[in-house]
Parts: sequence; structure tokens; C-alpha cells
Amino acid sequence: MTTAILVSEVGPRDGLQSIAALMPLESKMAWVKAEAAAGVREIEVGSFVPAKLLPQLADTASLVQYALTIPGLTVAVLVPNLHGAQAALRAGAHKITIPLSASETHSLRNVRRTHAQMLEEVRAIAQLIRAMPPQRRPVLEGGLSTAFGCTLEGHVPSMKVIELAEALMRCGCDEVGLSDTTGYANPAQIKSLVREVQSAVGAAAVHSLHLHNTRGLGLANVLAGIEAGITTFDGSLGGLGGCPFAPGASGNIVTEDLVFMLEAMGLDTGIDLPRLLEVRSILRDSLPDEPLYGFTPAAGLPLGYTAAGGTA
Amino acid sequence: MTTAILVSEVGPRDGLQSIAALMPLESKMAWVKAEAAAGVREIEVGSFVPAKLLPQLADTASLVQYALTIPGLTVAVLVPNLHGAQAALRAGAHKITIPLSASETHSLRNVRRTHAQMLEEVRAIAQLIRAMPPQRRPVLEGGLSTAFGCTLEGHVPSMKVIELAEALMRCGCDEVGLSDTTGYANPAQIKSLVREVQSAVGAAAVHSLHLHNTRGLGLANVLAGIEAGITTFDGSLGGLGGCPFAPGASGNIVTEDLVFMLEAMGLDTGIDLPRLLEVRSILRDSLPDEPLYGFTPAAGLPLGYTAAGGTA
Repeated sequence: MTTAILVSEVGPRDGLQSIAALMPLESKMAWVKAEAAAGVREIEVGSFVPAKLLPQLADTASLVQYALTIPGLTVAVLVPNLHGAQAALRAGAHKITIPLSASETHSLRNVRRTHAQMLEEVRAIAQLIRAMPPQRRPVLEGGLSTAFGCTLEGHVPSMKVIELAEALMRCGCDEVGLSDTTGYANPAQIKSLVREVQSAVGAAAVHSLHLHNTRGLGLANVLAGIEAGITTFDGSLGGLGGCPFAPGASGNIVTEDLVFMLEAMGLDTGIDLPRLLEVRSILRDSLPDEPLYGFTPAAGLPLGYTAAGGTA
Repeated sequence: MTTAILVSEVGPRDGLQSIAALMPLESKMAWVKAEAAAGVREIEVGSFVPAKLLPQLADTASLVQYALTIPGLTVAVLVPNLHGAQAALRAGAHKITIPLSASETHSLRNVRRTHAQMLEEVRAIAQLIRAMPPQRRPVLEGGLSTAFGCTLEGHVPSMKVIELAEALMRCGCDEVGLSDTTGYANPAQIKSLVREVQSAVGAAAVHSLHLHNTRGLGLANVLAGIEAGITTFDGSLGGLGGCPFAPGASGNIVTEDLVFMLEAMGLDTGIDLPRLLEVRSILRDSLPDEPLYGFTPAAGLPLGYTAAGGTA
């Protein structure tokens, strides 16, 4: 079992896109800066989507530009299509994730595209990236959403997920991530699907999970993922988040609780948890009407808590 | 890995002891009846403690008497000492748990007794039980509380837990349970401590965990427990509960979320989850001012959900 885990903060994208309030760019910059200072090494700062669809993320290019000035930080973004990817490449993001919903019904509802149409976009994006000088090429991730079930279709066959993972890699993705967009996943399913997809496209290309805590199984699913060899987990500070297009889906894993579990288990995240907990004040101040979640923030750290890295 | 798990409902004891409101005996009876009808096979219905200490549980003898009329139900109770055990034996409980806090500071605070004094009580209880006709003897469990850490002492050495588990078995317990009274446990610790205690006293005597969800790790800890061979997990309907004597400790695992995870994983609990969810209405009606918790109750069952046993 691995002893180092990458916690990828997706709150500035997945969290903010699911709430009505707009966070000012200055607050987003303060948030990204503070999390990086607490030791977070990868942050998904936004999404290149039309501002009229998601005004909350309209300043993504500016936030990418700022985040790129922070040493050691991997600056990730989401793009729904080729047009978004072009903007992401112009901005200079280190990592680009394009979601592909394993449920075609969800894909049509979410981005109004079939699987075939989405794969065409992925191929075009990969071609653009390959035309760039190697040292400027971002990592291209295909994010398989609704991989563990769909609020519209229900059960999603693992064969469909495997087939789409293979298609994403053939289209030029560097890696595929599995997303439990709807909070349907359970630990047994996490282990079996991760292993099946790893067998199909190679373990090196399947190292990240995006999990929701909709039914309270988020951290149990993380544990199952670790046992299957996953080393990157998304979280959202204060549990901001969810998918506004999947009815009934809500709640990313709370980054604070995720880091607490990993560090308590002796898995090194490189994150200073007490310092991470302080970052919540930026959310409280800039989004005063949004509820923040998290068990560890509410209960506090255990008496005598020691982080995996040895820092208290 | 096992495919059948016993979910032991402790809400009528651990839940009710931690809230100020008194639930009428009729409501407790309705609760126990409804949970048994939903398939719950073991319920800790109360505690034999002085009524002036815990007036919420003053009717435990009457509730035991009622619960014994439900076919197939294991009727469990908690006792703090020999005096309580005598009452439990008179009432005819099937299972008696006596807690022993691994943290002596917590033991002194909770029951005003040292480890040596508590072990003396356990020995006396076991002698009483051995004097009974074999077919009437209840199971005697030593419940090692604060086994994973203490809000007063902090870290609790695993050697201390092992030593006390051995002492409990020597004093005549049939089994020992491990309790994360304070919500300090993490999955790695669960696995290692369960295995160490099993090595010391035999795996057959270590099959149950009592976990709290104080820092959100409850279900991840269940998963770790299953992987270590644990087959019985306590839960509290609606997440009522906690330990009023351990400052900062709160929140048993929510029975509904526990059952959802287990059944979704294909582990048979024998519990009809939709029917279990309906039992919450008894708590809402009889404790209108108490908040009820649970992710699965809030989100609902996934579209197309099928239980492990094959019932929808």
C-alpha cells in the first residue's frame, strides 16, 4: 500500500459551480493561496464554460493566471469541450479534465452531447495538445462521471465504463479518473471497478477518484480506493459542491475530513491540517450565507493528534 | 471475507442516554418492535443504572420484559457494575455488556472506579452467571471503551487494551468488544488493534465494534473492521447518541447509513432498509425536539437499489 496520497482540491470549481452566490476573484485568489500554503499541491481552480451558464466561474482564466505564480502548485481546470480546452491551453493550465458521463442520458442532459460526440471533442483536444512543444503540454484527463451509477439511468454497467475508459485513452487522454457524481458508489464496487478499469487501460493511467459523500460513504470509498491502488483523491473544502445537473446528487468529500483520515492512518498528504482548517475562514467571510460542512472541523483534532509527516 | 453482518441497534441505550428528553416506555416498545420487524436481530434496549443518574433509562427492566416477547430478537443491556448485572439477570436479558474504559482517567470519571475495581465487578458478575442453569445464562461481553484514544488521556497504548482484554477474559467474559467512544479511531488503527486483540484472546472472542462518527470516519472504520474479521457493528437509529461523560464525543454511527453500506456491498444484514427508514417516524414523533441524522435518509436510496438479500 502506498504511503503518500495526493489530495486534489476541487472546491473552487465543483464547490462554487453548485452554489448561487458569486465569490469575488480576490477571495478565490486568497483561497487558492492559503490552501497551497497549507500544503495542497493540486487545485482545480475553475472550468472554462460559457459565463452565462456558470457565472460563478467566469473568471477562471484570471484565476489560472494567478495560480500559476504559486511555486509547486499543479493548476487544474475542467473543460466541457474543445472550445473550453482552447481557452485552458491559452491560459496555461497544467492539467485539463474533460468529463465524459458513463450514462449517456446524463451526458445529454449535462452537456447535450452523445458519447460519440464527446469522444470526438476529446480527440480534437488531444491533437491540439500534441501540436504543442512537449514542455508546455498539459496532462489530459478523461473524467468518467456517473461511473458508479446515475440518478437518471440507475445502474451503470461496468462494461460501459471500461469501454469508455478504453475509448478515452485511444482518443489521446493521458489518464482516466472515475467519478461518483451521484454518490451511488460503495466500497466493494470501488475496488472492483477500479481494478477492472486498471486491467483494461493500465494501472498507471487510473490513479484518481472523485467521490461524493451523498450517502455518507465517501471516506469508506476512499479507503477502498487506496486498497485498489488509487493515489489521488478529490475533496472540496468545507464540503462545498455537488453536481447541479444530477438531481439528488450533492456533497463532495470534505477535504478536511479526508486529510484527517489519511494523516491519522499515517498516509502522508504533505498538508498541514491545522493550517488547512484555518482556510475555512476565507469561505465563511466571502460566502456568509453558504453552509460549511465537515466532521473534523466541528469536533476538532483529537488530543495528542500527530500528522503522518510528523508535524502536529 | 464474511458475507453476513450483524447490525446491533444501540439507540435505545446509547442514543437515549445522551439526550435530555425522556422517551415514554410505549414509544420505546414501538421502536424496538418496529426495528425487529424490519429485520434487526439484536437491540441494546437500555442500561441498569440508578434512575437518578440516567432517568431516560429508568424503565429498562420493563423494556427488557417486553423485548423478550419478540421472537428471534437478542435482547442486550449495559450494566456498570455487579448491582446492575443482578438487575439484568433478574430481567432475563440475553446479553450483558459491562464497559471497561481502557483509559483509567475516563473510567474514574465515568464510573468512579479503577481498572482493578472494575475487573473485580466483572469477576463477580461472571460467577453469578456461572451459578445459573446453562440454558438461562446470558452472554457476558466486556466492552473496552476509549480503546482507540481518550479525550482526557489522548493516545491509549494498544498494549493497555490488549492487557485489559486478557484480564476481561480471565475474569470470565465470553467476549470483548472494542469501542471508539471518542471518535478517535482511524481505519489503520482499527485493523491493527483488532488483529492484536484477536491474537491475544482468540478471534472468536473479538467480533464486535462500537464506533462513533465524531470525525466522519465511522463507515470507513466499519470497512476496516470487516477486513479484520469483525462481524458485529453497533449503530444508532437516526444517529442519536454519544457518551455524555467523554467531552467532545458525540454521534454513534447512523444505523441507516451502516445498513445501506453493508447491503450495497452485498453483505447480508437481514434488514429491510426501506422498512428501517420508516422507523425514524417513531423517533420524530416521540422526540420532536431531537435532531435526527443520516446521509442515506436525506438523500434517499439510489435509483434501482437492490439489497444484498435480493429484496428491493
